[in-house]
Amino acid sequence: MARRIQVFDTTLRDGEQTPGASLTVDEKVQVARQLARLRVDVIEAGFPAASPGEALAVRRIATEVGAAKGAPAIAALARCVPEDVTAAAEALAPARRQQLHVFIATSDIHLTHKLRATRAEVLDRITACVAQARDLVGPGQQVEFSAEDASRTETPFLLEAYETALAAGATIINVPDTVGYAEPDEFASLVRQVVRMVGRRGMVSVHCHNDLGLATANTLAAIRAGARQVEVTVNGLGERAGNASLEEVVMTLRTRPTRFRGATTQVASDQLTATSRLVSFLTGISVQPNKSVVGANAFAHESGIHQDGFLKNALTYEIMTPESVGLTGSTLTLGKLSGRRGFNERLRRLGIELEPTALDALYGEAIALADHKKQVTDADLIALADQRADPVPVLIRLEHWAAASRQGESSSGNVSLFFDGRTYRAFAGGNGPVDALLKAVDNALEQIIGGRPTLVDYQLRSVGSGEDAQGEAMLKIAEPEPAAEGGSQRTYTGHGLSTNVVEASLRAYLAAVNKLIAEHPVAEAALQADASTVIRSGSTQ
Amino acid sequence: MARRIQVFDTTLRDGEQTPGASLTVDEKVQVARQLARLRVDVIEAGFPAASPGEALAVRRIATEVGAAKGAPAIAALARCVPEDVTAAAEALAPARRQQLHVFIATSDIHLTHKLRATRAEVLDRITACVAQARDLVGPGQQVEFSAEDASRTETPFLLEAYETALAAGATIINVPDTVGYAEPDEFASLVRQVVRMVGRRGMVSVHCHNDLGLATANTLAAIRAGARQVEVTVNGLGERAGNASLEEVVMTLRTRPTRFRGATTQVASDQLTATSRLVSFLTGISVQPNKSVVGANAFAHESGIHQDGFLKNALTYEIMTPESVGLTGSTLTLGKLSGRRGFNERLRRLGIELEPTALDALYGEAIALADHKKQVTDADLIALADQRADPVPVLIRLEHWAAASRQGESSSGNVSLFFDGRTYRAFAGGNGPVDALLKAVDNALEQIIGGRPTLVDYQLRSVGSGEDAQGEAMLKIAEPEPAAEGGSQRTYTGHGLSTNVVEASLRAYLAAVNKLIAEHPVAEAALQADASTVIRSGSTQ
Repeated sequence: MARRIQVFDTTLRDGEQTPGASLTVDEKVQVARQLARLRVDVIEAGFPAASPGEALAVRRIATEVGAAKGAPAIAALARCVPEDVTAAAEALAPARRQQLHVFIATSDIHLTHKLRATRAEVLDRITACVAQARDLVGPGQQVEFSAEDASRTETPFLLEAYETALAAGATIINVPDTVGYAEPDEFASLVRQVVRMVGRRGMVSVHCHNDLGLATANTLAAIRAGARQVEVTVNGLGERAGNASLEEVVMTLRTRPTRFRGATTQVASDQLTATSRLVSFLTGISVQPNKSVVGANAFAHESGIHQDGFLKNALTYEIMTPESVGLTGSTLTLGKLSGRRGFNERLRRLGIELEPTALDALYGEAIALADHKKQVTDADLIALADQRADPVPVLIRLEHWAAASRQGESSSGNVSLFFDGRTYRAFAGGNGPVDALLKAVDNALEQIIGGRPTLVDYQLRSVGSGEDAQGEAMLKIAEPEPAAEGGSQRTYTGHGLSTNVVEASLRAYLAAVNKLIAEHPVAEAALQADASTVIRSGSTQ
Repeated sequence: MARRIQVFDTTLRDGEQTPGASLTVDEKVQVARQLARLRVDVIEAGFPAASPGEALAVRRIATEVGAAKGAPAIAALARCVPEDVTAAAEALAPARRQQLHVFIATSDIHLTHKLRATRAEVLDRITACVAQARDLVGPGQQVEFSAEDASRTETPFLLEAYETALAAGATIINVPDTVGYAEPDEFASLVRQVVRMVGRRGMVSVHCHNDLGLATANTLAAIRAGARQVEVTVNGLGERAGNASLEEVVMTLRTRPTRFRGATTQVASDQLTATSRLVSFLTGISVQPNKSVVGANAFAHESGIHQDGFLKNALTYEIMTPESVGLTGSTLTLGKLSGRRGFNERLRRLGIELEPTALDALYGEAIALADHKKQVTDADLIALADQRADPVPVLIRLEHWAAASRQGESSSGNVSLFFDGRTYRAFAGGNGPVDALLKAVDNALEQIIGGRPTLVDYQLRSVGSGEDAQGEAMLKIAEPEPAAEGGSQRTYTGHGLSTNVVEASLRAYLAAVNKLIAEHPVAEAALQADASTVIRSGSTQ
């Protein structure tokens, strides 16, 4: 019996709640477009009541990704309060297929310590908010109800809460293991009871956290127990240790269909590698080399024993092919670029799809890079293409920089920046050339926005090997103003790519600063003058 | 019924086979010492027949860690060939408790494509090598037999292989899911059959790979099915997507004892964070922020919803305490150091234990750092202590360096290096200051060893936040000589710490170069002159 499992991706909601992962609206739209290419069934785009930015992101994704024929359904989260449900319904309205997702906690520990509500009050709120959601989304649209901390809720009350939600019009019943506490057998037995109770009245969904490393196993056990929707994230992102990883759940079903009564998904698995890379790049949250399916070593073979067997037959150590997850590039160095036709062919093989103008620009960059590097590798081309995936608004442009550094002395740096018709020159000393240049930029920013951002995170990695390798910098900054009470300080991620690591770092900083400035009042005039242009944060200079 | 589960750590064997993870002998001993503090039951120290370096590492660990009373047992791997078994027995000899681990593949796919042997031949080899191992290790020592690719072996033949091993004297029967193919229910059912067959004649062990993200779940399912030894690695390191993660298995048993018939381990879970950090640091293999138990975000709470509940009661979203895994430091900035007593107290709270001389040196470094940084944070102290954990031989010393860089032009760098009584001065141009300085070092190395290493990987991260944050560089190089046929090229990892990122990078390069030189013939004279000194790769200059 083949069963279609619905893949509900919550990278943009639960994943984006990861500390340090916050994305701009443009970045979220970019991720949503890739999730559509991956062919997930549902994209949970955000939590509209959380902030105006969240509401805007959900609305833009509903419009730009969810309005097309055949697009994934768009979901939005709402607490069981009337304003949240209204905000979610409004943000979802442009989507062709909508899934309004309301939740309330049901475990005693949450009732006592967080909600401070009785069970009867919780049931009343479920009735009210599910009915409200049912009214607000059109007929044929989905209302999903989640009982937060379900796995620690007493089962009779949990079933009563679900019964209440069904009676009020919910069509999807979600069983979250909010704290990552469940073990597969017990979780399967809970899900089995819920599936039996729900019957044909709705679809049962699961949402598993990974605190004990069991999110994927719990999700799969739930599928065997009859769950038809799985809530997952790209790279297993999410609060704390994250959520069940989309790629692990999808590839297990593909690799071991007979263990799951023929359960399948419609996910285009050859988009998994590209999706993982995009999410890691834009969030700045790395994927460890030994991550299943999408880690850099997932298909690498090191030990002599394994290499020997592997060379004789890939199946001795490989249960899936690299191609099945879209890992088509070799890591081999391929020498000088062999003309425009060879270049296009190489990109296609790497799974990089670009518009003709972007393709032209990338070709120019690759040619320029070849002047600085002995060999332009697949890794270089992927890094150049990644830079293009980062939507950076054009506001401040770098005109010039220089830096000097020696042992035991302060370093010095100076920059020329162009903003809104004027050149700003600034100088600073610092502990090293990067510190000095970032401080010089800050001195210019004092004049432009009257404040200095805070550096939250800075990482640099070589792209491939060799001393002439490009450096890819990732830098996160927090906005200078103290956040409004109750809100959290916004952070912005920037990337820079250069064979000069100091320049890569400076460009990453300016990319992050440009994202920050775009949401700052001073940007309005500048943005109106040139609203559509997007610059790249990378350079091979 | 409480059952003691034996934790067999294979970080130094299967984990060290991870591409790019190769450790020097000194580094392996360092890891083994920490595994002893973690109180694992067995340390698999290596595969002595693989190379003289592997044999030396196992022998040193058997001597320096395994000879003490109450020390973990030391295990060594051997293929089912006489020379391997001999090499393993010799390397293990100094250990008080020895576990000689022989393996041969049993699945048809391995027999056909790798071993090119019949089933009868495989059984004969099992009898011969297990009996040989039994003879070579003393009475009371363990002989473990693994059937490689057990989960894809036809069960009757697998049981026959295990029966043969038991008859020849094996005391531990290991069931590996070599290719990470198993699903928990089917793996439990296989293990249950093996447990029933083995009975009281031995202990059943499991070894699970994580290709589908199920290694931890499979290991736990096997414990429920009666397995008494689990083969795991720190951070889930290992071939491809790695092995079952030690920390996930241990913390699941601690958090959910009733689900595992009271199974417990003797692991000191408050050493988990320190062990994870040491292994990640020395291998240069990062742990993703959303890794269970030991990831940077595993105990972090971001979303407004969760923070609110969390502040009211940690149990609403936390099923284990950070303290239970040894995460005792806050990430808060604590201002200027408050004297020597406060410093010692702060280190103790962070779980950093050092000899008095190392403590003095660290205090001096922290004071020097305070001249360059507004605030010395817990993260800074941990990074300084990490540098001390890296055993770098003193051979080449950095006397001086300088570099300059500006947009659109080549950078320049010069270095003075002191080696074996002589100063080497060298200059080079490059794409950026780091490239230029590394090339300058290479120019000096041409004179010293007649070759240049290859840069394999380079990463830099900020330690905490702020533009004046320290940069921690990690750099891997491969030896200049082409590897001998069949052998793989050795790689060396170096670390550098400085508030100047260029200096951190240069120091990391020199640390890696020093490790390389120490194994090079030119080092012999210099090493004999000063064999015991160890320099640090970090500096706050």
